[in-house]
Amino acid sequence: MFKIAVTGKGGVGKTTLAGTLSRMFARDSYDSLAIDADSDMNLASSIGIKNPPKPLTEYKNLIEERTGEIGGVFKYNPKVDDVVERFGVIGPDGVKMLIMGTVERGGSGCMCPASSFLRAFLRHVILKENTAVILDMEAGIEHLGRGTTRGIDLMIIVVEPGMRSIETASRIKKLSQDIGIKNIAAVVNKGPSKSVKPYLDKFEIPLLGEIPYDPQMVNADLEGLAPIDYGGESVNAIENIKDQVLKMIKHSK
Amino acid sequence: MFKIAVTGKGGVGKTTLAGTLSRMFARDSYDSLAIDADSDMNLASSIGIKNPPKPLTEYKNLIEERTGEIGGVFKYNPKVDDVVERFGVIGPDGVKMLIMGTVERGGSGCMCPASSFLRAFLRHVILKENTAVILDMEAGIEHLGRGTTRGIDLMIIVVEPGMRSIETASRIKKLSQDIGIKNIAAVVNKGPSKSVKPYLDKFEIPLLGEIPYDPQMVNADLEGLAPIDYGGESVNAIENIKDQVLKMIKHSK
Repeated sequence: MFKIAVTGKGGVGKTTLAGTLSRMFARDSYDSLAIDADSDMNLASSIGIKNPPKPLTEYKNLIEERTGEIGGVFKYNPKVDDVVERFGVIGPDGVKMLIMGTVERGGSGCMCPASSFLRAFLRHVILKENTAVILDMEAGIEHLGRGTTRGIDLMIIVVEPGMRSIETASRIKKLSQDIGIKNIAAVVNKGPSKSVKPYLDKFEIPLLGEIPYDPQMVNADLEGLAPIDYGGESVNAIENIKDQVLKMIKHSK
Repeated sequence: MFKIAVTGKGGVGKTTLAGTLSRMFARDSYDSLAIDADSDMNLASSIGIKNPPKPLTEYKNLIEERTGEIGGVFKYNPKVDDVVERFGVIGPDGVKMLIMGTVERGGSGCMCPASSFLRAFLRHVILKENTAVILDMEAGIEHLGRGTTRGIDLMIIVVEPGMRSIETASRIKKLSQDIGIKNIAAVVNKGPSKSVKPYLDKFEIPLLGEIPYDPQMVNADLEGLAPIDYGGESVNAIENIKDQVLKMIKHSK
């Protein structure tokens, strides 16, 4: 059983990686649970789910209940299957999916209650032995201020060629360590890792692998297909990254 | 005097557009004030500022003071020059710059206090007749839940070819209307607007212009140069967009 979060600057390819990994874990016979933790939700389409579940924020009573005394209501330790049955959907290859929340109305407030809920959920939910939880985080670093991912087994930081996503990576590394995350590693997306590698070395972020720039991914997106169902070079690259992820997690346990 | 916010899905090019527009307004003899409202800050480099100011969140007392009674402390209506002198820097072409805030330590909390501060600042600060304020917003939609941009004159939504950034655009349009923003328009970045235009029409989002895909922008980023100082096709395109922005704002006043 393990929990992974996928983070990085906006637009680097977090959702593509998270959605594709969740499908690959499911095919590897893990009980795969994918959680969209970005209020600007789009994980469902990258998994290949046409009818995404309602965000947990829409269950008003649920959220208020839980965040009044965070974790308190989780005393009975819900089973993941119950939670998914009530609030989630099951997608291709049996991937289970939950959506944390969204902004329903301009001016209606921040994502703090939803984030608190997710943090408590991750701490209290009972997962089966062979469960793989994949969290697709919001762009940037605010979730690390909130500590949403405290207690996860691996933080994957997606970077792309260019200084800005590398700066974000160095911030994420530092903030992740602040909340006690031990395994932090990078994936380079949209191009060779050559220009990026020296910076990752400097920040002591190990490299899990690289995904080549693949213009087909734009077509997959426009056609509304999940990358894994569209196929191509970048999906093959993610297959290798998945193996590295499993190796890293086994090694650390 | 006008206030513009640049929004959109992560990675679509918000910061490049915001930074370049702020330089162009300054060259047009506006008093140009650029504000980085993304906790994962990188507006400074796109303006060409090497030594960014300290984020406002680091002035602990200031923020707590202000958010205890939002706006209350702004009774004396600070002049923008005083605020910039105390907390900002002046960059190339005389662009003034402020940074809202960042996450200093993992687990230290959300960006709500900093967002409240910025919202109050925008409402109370006294701007000269010919001031152009450009806000570079965080990726996604949480800032619209918070209503940070309430009262601005134009919301620019940056999109790129692909369904995901268009979905984000439709969410931003709806949430912006919720908080009373009347002028909402799109810029298509990284490619022709052809595949995107039908969706913008469907969501009734007028198009300000398009910025071609320009691989030189990656080089500018790697070399640490502001796009406007690097030049190229995309900078020329932004020059046209700037004219459209000014037209739209004049038309609406």
